[in-house]
Amino acid sequence: MSSRSVPVSPSRGSLRPLGLDEVRITGGFWADRQRVNAAATLPHIEGKLESEGWLPNFDLAAAGTLPAGRRGREFSDSEVYKYLEAVAWQLGRSTDAALEARFRAVARRVAAAQEPDGYLNTRFGRPGQEPRWSDLEWGHELYCLGHLFQAAVARERTRPGADDGLLAVAVRAADLVCDVFDDGGIESVCGHAEVEVGLAELARVTGSPRHARMARLFIQRRGHQSLRDIEWGRSYYQDDVPVRQAEVLRGHAVRANYLSAGAVDVAVDAGDDELLRALRAQWARTVATRTYLTGGQGSHHQDEAFGDDFELPSDRAYSETCAGIGSIMFSWRLLLAGEAATDAGGDAAGYADLIERTLYNVVATSPSHDGRAFYYANTLHQRVARRPADPEQTSPRASASLRAPWFDVSCCPPNVARTLASLDAYLATADADGIQLHQYAPATLATTLDDGRAIGLEIDTAYPASGLVRVRVTSDADAAWTLSLRVPAWAAGAVLTEPDGATREVAPGTATVRRAFRAGDVVQLALPVAPRITRPDPRIDAVRGCVAIERGPEVLALESVDFPASGPADVDGLAVEGEPVERDGRVWVRVHPVGSAAPDWPYGAEVAAPDAHAVEVPLVAYHDWAGRGPSTMRVWIPERA
Amino acid sequence: MSSRSVPVSPSRGSLRPLGLDEVRITGGFWADRQRVNAAATLPHIEGKLESEGWLPNFDLAAAGTLPAGRRGREFSDSEVYKYLEAVAWQLGRSTDAALEARFRAVARRVAAAQEPDGYLNTRFGRPGQEPRWSDLEWGHELYCLGHLFQAAVARERTRPGADDGLLAVAVRAADLVCDVFDDGGIESVCGHAEVEVGLAELARVTGSPRHARMARLFIQRRGHQSLRDIEWGRSYYQDDVPVRQAEVLRGHAVRANYLSAGAVDVAVDAGDDELLRALRAQWARTVATRTYLTGGQGSHHQDEAFGDDFELPSDRAYSETCAGIGSIMFSWRLLLAGEAATDAGGDAAGYADLIERTLYNVVATSPSHDGRAFYYANTLHQRVARRPADPEQTSPRASASLRAPWFDVSCCPPNVARTLASLDAYLATADADGIQLHQYAPATLATTLDDGRAIGLEIDTAYPASGLVRVRVTSDADAAWTLSLRVPAWAAGAVLTEPDGATREVAPGTATVRRAFRAGDVVQLALPVAPRITRPDPRIDAVRGCVAIERGPEVLALESVDFPASGPADVDGLAVEGEPVERDGRVWVRVHPVGSAAPDWPYGAEVAAPDAHAVEVPLVAYHDWAGRGPSTMRVWIPERA
Repeated sequence: MSSRSVPVSPSRGSLRPLGLDEVRITGGFWADRQRVNAAATLPHIEGKLESEGWLPNFDLAAAGTLPAGRRGREFSDSEVYKYLEAVAWQLGRSTDAALEARFRAVARRVAAAQEPDGYLNTRFGRPGQEPRWSDLEWGHELYCLGHLFQAAVARERTRPGADDGLLAVAVRAADLVCDVFDDGGIESVCGHAEVEVGLAELARVTGSPRHARMARLFIQRRGHQSLRDIEWGRSYYQDDVPVRQAEVLRGHAVRANYLSAGAVDVAVDAGDDELLRALRAQWARTVATRTYLTGGQGSHHQDEAFGDDFELPSDRAYSETCAGIGSIMFSWRLLLAGEAATDAGGDAAGYADLIERTLYNVVATSPSHDGRAFYYANTLHQRVARRPADPEQTSPRASASLRAPWFDVSCCPPNVARTLASLDAYLATADADGIQLHQYAPATLATTLDDGRAIGLEIDTAYPASGLVRVRVTSDADAAWTLSLRVPAWAAGAVLTEPDGATREVAPGTATVRRAFRAGDVVQLALPVAPRITRPDPRIDAVRGCVAIERGPEVLALESVDFPASGPADVDGLAVEGEPVERDGRVWVRVHPVGSAAPDWPYGAEVAAPDAHAVEVPLVAYHDWAGRGPSTMRVWIPERA
Repeated sequence: MSSRSVPVSPSRGSLRPLGLDEVRITGGFWADRQRVNAAATLPHIEGKLESEGWLPNFDLAAAGTLPAGRRGREFSDSEVYKYLEAVAWQLGRSTDAALEARFRAVARRVAAAQEPDGYLNTRFGRPGQEPRWSDLEWGHELYCLGHLFQAAVARERTRPGADDGLLAVAVRAADLVCDVFDDGGIESVCGHAEVEVGLAELARVTGSPRHARMARLFIQRRGHQSLRDIEWGRSYYQDDVPVRQAEVLRGHAVRANYLSAGAVDVAVDAGDDELLRALRAQWARTVATRTYLTGGQGSHHQDEAFGDDFELPSDRAYSETCAGIGSIMFSWRLLLAGEAATDAGGDAAGYADLIERTLYNVVATSPSHDGRAFYYANTLHQRVARRPADPEQTSPRASASLRAPWFDVSCCPPNVARTLASLDAYLATADADGIQLHQYAPATLATTLDDGRAIGLEIDTAYPASGLVRVRVTSDADAAWTLSLRVPAWAAGAVLTEPDGATREVAPGTATVRRAFRAGDVVQLALPVAPRITRPDPRIDAVRGCVAIERGPEVLALESVDFPASGPADVDGLAVEGEPVERDGRVWVRVHPVGSAAPDWPYGAEVAAPDAHAVEVPLVAYHDWAGRGPSTMRVWIPERA
């Protein structure tokens, strides 16, 4: 059977994603965040879209009064579409008449702004505006439509045949894109990749070969310098090297990941294993050389871009929330593509490892606990406890040390919202022989294998606080099937207990249990989540001589608000010694204040003063930092020599 | 007597700068660069100003045909003025009829563009252009005029009363600025400080109290939020905190230094010791916490700005050439202000130390040896040998690893040119009791003390290749006077030899010899220039665990083009061991290639593979790097544990 309520539904691939209709997160870490997302973040976003004018722009378009009164940047339409996508997933998770009405109201306003030939954008094409498609480098018209397509796909997969008209709007727009951009038309691409992934998925819904072909053409054209050169080079929008020839992700980190995700879709649908191999190799090198410990990507504030290999500054980490989400999109598609071309490195567990790391340490870091403020950039080191001028005001992207309710460029909040609302769909897959669990959360799973066998599971865990994951089978089977469990790369020494009580150590990668499971059978995986010291590759200059403390999938951090009154004031000028210890539900380390012997010039033959005496301080989960007012924070801590 | 051919002529201060008419560099390191500057750089710049349209803009203005055909950014006029200033200093160093004619031709074209009321800017104020003074944040009108004033001052001080009209143009423009910006007028400041330093110096030439008052008003107003807030905050243009209350330089590094230089001028002229003390304290903290080993300043590419304290990444060092020049302007003015308010740290030797460091490692790094290509940003670590697409083309600011002939924003080349052409004026000062030598180069000096005593010196040295500086007195004195010599902070163990042959060790700071010198007397200073290992303050995260090698005032670097064929390919993945040794005129270190044990994820319990065997490689003076094609380079080298 084909998958239903899923963000990605490949036409090919050994693993079939299980959708919101098959897997449901029922409690724990992520359920808490999904609850806040539904209760607080979605209304917060809609309120901002309204008050900032980004949603009213559609009304102005429908009224024919644009460009007067238009507000927001050139890509503001896309935030409305991402919001619709988020709401669609949320409605796929639980019925909510009020939310359904809100969805329909917004969708109606969007539909009313569409022009007769299918064009839809509030920023271009009317008298007094620049002409349609006149600024492919920066105009974001196709980018916006890609998000419209993803929203329509989410809606159709969670509420098939809904009479809200959004899918028809998307199809008309996609048809126009095909008319305009097919060979012989404007043979170029959008400065911000996204339409590729949108078109590919829309084609999987509509079955339209034109939409699939258009996605393929956009991927093929990228890298052939059809966009103008700019100060940061064409690598900024990946138009420097064809996708299949590239060796690593580069340029703007969101653009690079969205493009890669779309390229996987195209490679899978077209049976293009060469392209898929190239993408796997790019993923592998990007993860090995250009990814932060948190899973975050992007080292440059200036162009929101990847740096060179091993250029991974903690203090100037950009690690945009949206880049993390894009990385999850890319990794998940490679995971689903399955066994093809695994020679280039990366297997399902590797992709799911990065997804988990990014979920816990980027996606979960962005929103505040109340769901009404967000990080756009996710630094790994905050030297100054910087309070925003007005915490209620719209913020530039990354200047304060606290989360902000909204941004001039506000791509991240709705991106987080759609990711959290669809997160259930990233937990598990099925193949002909059974079920694969990729992420661990309290959840129920009910699906049917290709041969018609019904399979049910209940997952019970306090992960990541505890490493114990109990998988109870709720279905009876006469024939054997395989339950696969990811063992994270950090989980050396994990122990698996079979239904018969037999235990065995399982190595990082994939652990499997194959048998004719009976209802009530329990498979238990014990992952060692004791805090551990992590050291960086010696080629990462920015964190040489430092260690980080991790615990399970969570990166921990020092935060100044945790320091005792008699202890150091700030997280800098400290050196850590010895092993972290867990006590009272927290992880503690011993740190020594380190002074400077050279107060007037910070370089010399001898510059370090002797250590002061040590003090024990607790660590905080990185995703929880900055929840208690302005503070200083660091993930990587100098190690005492 | 008052000083003549000097860029800075304070009305007060214990040290009187000696100008081009009193000190002349006669050979060595800087004479070579001055020769190239005159022979190659000045014609190169004038050619670019012509071909890029920045000089023809003045012709269009005079013809009344602007704005059609205007080329260049909003501040392009200033590059013409900096060029004029450079040529004025060069003409002050040696007579050159052809260059004199070029100066006059350019000055004529500038004068022809001035409007009847004194306004002068090719970008604003005409029909079809934005109104005058309508964009103080980004328009740069006052900034451009500041450079005009500095050019006119240079001309008047090197060719007093020249009939080229430039001084009259400057005075008319300054009068207009006073009319428009005095209290009751536009009570604001320019988004880019510069007019302050220009007005202050112009007032010293014209004696106009209005010009001095206007400089003072601009300094007083800064920091009171008269400019709009922007994404990077008002700290970008130092409009966040009043100058007298600020604690450290912040925001755009060129703006910050130009402002500080102007503020010293104002403080000195107004007898405002409180302001002077504040500036000394800001200088001291900036040097202690926000300055690169090279003397470079500015850690952010995004806003060309200072980072937080100790945020000094090597690989993303911006260290703009112009910020280095601005720092020299600021330091030199504090040095000249002399003994007032030294309690805030910094003495003449400290200021001259930073000037020397910045001259050798920023100013000398920017231009290529042929004087026709420049660095705008001066990275301390180049990971990828990046070749520009077309080395003959105008470049963005900082993307390639090679120098570029010109930039879209081309402030640095003419700034280097005016600095090199006036460098003689930064070598020495006089006070009532004698002469102070601040920088060492082969030079002649002839001046007259306030009491009428004529003093002559000849300085003979191969510095910085050699640390031996011989100062021969060429004048006879009946009464004792004091010769002061700077002993750089790095020169522990320096030895001074008096005319009578007596030797003594002199500590870093200032060494003095006081006597009734006779012609032929020689004072010799032996500075130890053996290569030395320098370590960073433990609070500088970016270079933890690394060492740099310095020799005399020069910072050295590893550059991949120097590696033996059998050695490592790149400067990364190496660890240095042991002491540097000097051999065959080069400095050598032993480095061990260090591998990675974790090729797929760069973090883990153990990630460093064992060292490979060591190889000996030479270092290059940082200012000479990238002179032999694309290469990788690093100043800070990991130290082997």
